[in-house]
Amino acid sequence: MKLLTPDELEAALRDIGARRYHRLHPFHAMLHGGQCSKGQVQAWALNRYYYQASIPLKDASLIARCDDASVRREWRSRLVDHDGEHDGDGGIARWLKLTDGLGLDRDYVTSLKGLLPGTRFAVEAYVHFVRDKTLLEAIASSLTELFSPVIIGERMAGMLSHYDFVTPETLSYFDKRPPQARRDSDFALDYVKRHARSPQDQQAVLAALEFKCGVLWSMLDALAYAYVSPGLVPPGAFVPDVT
Amino acid sequence: MKLLTPDELEAALRDIGARRYHRLHPFHAMLHGGQCSKGQVQAWALNRYYYQASIPLKDASLIARCDDASVRREWRSRLVDHDGEHDGDGGIARWLKLTDGLGLDRDYVTSLKGLLPGTRFAVEAYVHFVRDKTLLEAIASSLTELFSPVIIGERMAGMLSHYDFVTPETLSYFDKRPPQARRDSDFALDYVKRHARSPQDQQAVLAALEFKCGVLWSMLDALAYAYVSPGLVPPGAFVPDVT
Repeated sequence: MKLLTPDELEAALRDIGARRYHRLHPFHAMLHGGQCSKGQVQAWALNRYYYQASIPLKDASLIARCDDASVRREWRSRLVDHDGEHDGDGGIARWLKLTDGLGLDRDYVTSLKGLLPGTRFAVEAYVHFVRDKTLLEAIASSLTELFSPVIIGERMAGMLSHYDFVTPETLSYFDKRPPQARRDSDFALDYVKRHARSPQDQQAVLAALEFKCGVLWSMLDALAYAYVSPGLVPPGAFVPDVT
Repeated sequence: MKLLTPDELEAALRDIGARRYHRLHPFHAMLHGGQCSKGQVQAWALNRYYYQASIPLKDASLIARCDDASVRREWRSRLVDHDGEHDGDGGIARWLKLTDGLGLDRDYVTSLKGLLPGTRFAVEAYVHFVRDKTLLEAIASSLTELFSPVIIGERMAGMLSHYDFVTPETLSYFDKRPPQARRDSDFALDYVKRHARSPQDQQAVLAALEFKCGVLWSMLDALAYAYVSPGLVPPGAFVPDVT
């Protein structure tokens, strides 16, 4: 292992994204390419809800063991983004507008009863990773946001043009995310470039991003297996209404 | 919620097994029915290794917070079963005989580098569940062993008759398991029947078994998606040698 310059580290991180980010997954192509049925879009939104709802938990556990007030303040903006200022505000509430718009019962979505086991385990792996690993690794695991503005752009344009059951209002979650993700990933990238100063730390940073890409990837694997091909829904999970 | 009698609770547990145990998963049928390629059997054994290797961690964490010495002594036999008395002994070592026999490099298997993200997250979810939930739920989550003698019997007979790369020696892991599983599941079943005395406790016991069925099921989902259809191996995971 050799010590990378900060710019080499950034290049290595971007290379992981180019090879492992879930933008490369066929379910993403189906979703924004208009090949999903309404039931498949529902399954995606219902499962992804658990990811959205868990983001403040992982961010709070990161803040909870950070002894630098300036980092805590910066990271706090993520709590504001997701939880908002009042009931009905923030990213989680906007995600529920999407599941409402898709005709899913809100109590059913938030009960998590229809969740795929694969979604549950992937999301919980992320929460545990952030809670249990070093602060540097926890921050590095957020760096998939470097790549999210592109995937969100594809998703919004594709979904709006292909699905008559999707409206700009139901997709309001995605309007807000790209500038937030850019601000957050600029901060996190700068942090890891400045703080990963040994080859061991740099390898840990790279492994953290690989781990996180695996979280997002395996969520789409689980969706595709259950709802596309062979379409085998695990016992107890959401079954789309085919009427 | 009504209070079940101990026998009604047992019947409800067995009903969960009948509906949710991974014996119903098509990958199990493929594996013991002889429809797997050698590469698919390798992928199964390599991924399942991580489950085997993690069992003593979850069992030790259960013992570590149990204040009843008789339960701790009983549960300790599971550590002996998996870790053995010396290097090369015990269930994990016997599992490595299987991966050896399938032509997998032992260092590669134990490095976990080829693991599917879905396997990793499912296994870790099980370890975290046992560590974080009540002792009663932790014990209940072991109850998939009620159903394992049947699946092991199918797997052994089917694999020996269908695959020339599988021998009785490489399958020695499975020889030992049915009597161990019977002894262990008898104890665990008796424990939950005696200790789950409120409707809330009984529902938690049932939910723990459903959770565990989801762990095993989602491991086969991940294998089937990556190695059967569409055969999309997540970036970085094991790729069978097709030569």
